Amino acid sequence: MNFMKRKIAIIGAGAIGCYYGCRLAKAGEDVHFLLRGDYEAVRTSGRMRVALPKEEIVVAAPQIHRTPAEIGPCDLVIVGLKTTANDRFAELITPLLHAGTAILTLQNGLGSDALLAVLFGAERVLGGLCFIAANRTAPGEIVCIDPGSVAFGEYGRPAGERVREIAVMFERAGVRSTVGDHLAELRWIKLVWNVPFNGLSIAAGGIPTDLILASAELEGVVRALMAEVIDAAGKLGHVILPGFIEKQVSRTRLMGSYRPSSLIDYLEKREVEVEAIWGEPMRQAQQAGAAVPRLEMLYALLKRLTSQAH
Amino acid sequence: MNFMKRKIAIIGAGAIGCYYGCRLAKAGEDVHFLLRGDYEAVRTSGRMRVALPKEEIVVAAPQIHRTPAEIGPCDLVIVGLKTTANDRFAELITPLLHAGTAILTLQNGLGSDALLAVLFGAERVLGGLCFIAANRTAPGEIVCIDPGSVAFGEYGRPAGERVREIAVMFERAGVRSTVGDHLAELRWIKLVWNVPFNGLSIAAGGIPTDLILASAELEGVVRALMAEVIDAAGKLGHVILPGFIEKQVSRTRLMGSYRPSSLIDYLEKREVEVEAIWGEPMRQAQQAGAAVPRLEMLYALLKRLTSQAH
Repeated sequence: MNFMKRKIAIIGAGAIGCYYGCRLAKAGEDVHFLLRGDYEAVRTSGRMRVALPKEEIVVAAPQIHRTPAEIGPCDLVIVGLKTTANDRFAELITPLLHAGTAILTLQNGLGSDALLAVLFGAERVLGGLCFIAANRTAPGEIVCIDPGSVAFGEYGRPAGERVREIAVMFERAGVRSTVGDHLAELRWIKLVWNVPFNGLSIAAGGIPTDLILASAELEGVVRALMAEVIDAAGKLGHVILPGFIEKQVSRTRLMGSYRPSSLIDYLEKREVEVEAIWGEPMRQAQQAGAAVPRLEMLYALLKRLTSQAH
Repeated sequence: MNFMKRKIAIIGAGAIGCYYGCRLAKAGEDVHFLLRGDYEAVRTSGRMRVALPKEEIVVAAPQIHRTPAEIGPCDLVIVGLKTTANDRFAELITPLLHAGTAILTLQNGLGSDALLAVLFGAERVLGGLCFIAANRTAPGEIVCIDPGSVAFGEYGRPAGERVREIAVMFERAGVRSTVGDHLAELRWIKLVWNVPFNGLSIAAGGIPTDLILASAELEGVVRALMAEVIDAAGKLGHVILPGFIEKQVSRTRLMGSYRPSSLIDYLEKREVEVEAIWGEPMRQAQQAGAAVPRLEMLYALLKRLTSQAH
């Protein structure tokens, strides 16, 4: 893989795909966007745009495509699809591969890197955990209220040269980046927040994080769910200290009235990533022998609540 | 208390109060209804009515009153109020008492008989668990799809002569009745069903019992909640055999698309009896040292979900 002149494909034109794609394109990388429903609108406007609190990033004449075959083999495929579209990996990614193509999934939850590894070979697969608050407001239009950071890792291996180069590329593009040796652990760390807040924001009636924490009982459930996730992670070999719970709750209090991404999906009647965020973690926890009664109940409620929207 | 010519007051003109009040009045008992919002409508129509699957009970010119003082002291006070109105016990019941007045609460969940005992003396207090499916459709108009039965007991004592006489009176009025020595145990037995089905019907998005059981995951939660209630009851000295779970689930399957009373309250934006059915059982379970993680989570969700309706 030649990272001096790398060709990058972005699969998935939601907030994640567009945000990082625009950043990289603006930094001079050779970025190709695969668009489906948004293709015509972006072609007509002739641009993609990210609105940040204090700046705006406009990519004029972005390289957009309707099919992966049109893009052809790349050095790096960045997956920003919703996990609910993971059944389309083979169709969308196969035309983008050469022998040395790396695949970086920026998706939420558990299951995506394992599936990519089965389909395309574990050695290709990298992951990035995006700690970001951004929304797609229109085709090719992203509003980002907090750019946050990305934590990168390799699938099933300690971090190597390749993932460090990618992190450097993201840094150069203005994305705060870290590299970790334990991608699975990073995923579980993110789940400590996502499982309770994304889940309860839906199950408690479609409410933002501040209203969850305004209820002493729901805050108790948040903490208990976090403890279940940490315990399950521990049984899987990932050590997360219990003090992390207090930190996450305090941090969330400072976020004010924040709507987790799953809540937005739910309210806008889009598919919610129930399996990646709750189903797969629950199954891995059960297999590891962890007791996760609240996670099981939350999964059951969410599966039913989100099935009604479709 | 003279049960040959007893004077009975019915407090609460919902489905429970009207149904049993009409039954007793039709059987020749001296029944006085305390009505508030429904008073004018019933006075104008000049009747109260219960529609059953195969019969109709019409009480012409029922004895209705606007205030408890107008009714005056009775031999038996039957409490059919929602538990959410229990803060009005003193105001509503005090004028109805003489030295020997018995108070029979037909209310759901836990807490009502203990409160009545504190306010009026434990020796007055009796309870009845109503296994009935009935709804108030208009002032003084009740539709009953399953008259079921009532299980009577005394508060904190084995059944005595008094409660047996009352059960006989109900039987004569056409109500299938049983008498038990352990009222608290009867309440926990009813909770085994009410906690999961009333609760999940709301928390899973406003769905009837058949849709709860159509989800393998939610059925698992139903069974786990039932096990928590049975375990808590056991720690409080009430033995409910685990086989009861299978029986309750099978029985519920046969009920088809049934909407638990709490779901109807919720959908019609009336107060839901959150404390009586979930809050107080949860607190008693916690005090007894039982682990009830799912009940705690359900309570937290319901408290929030039902607060939004008001």
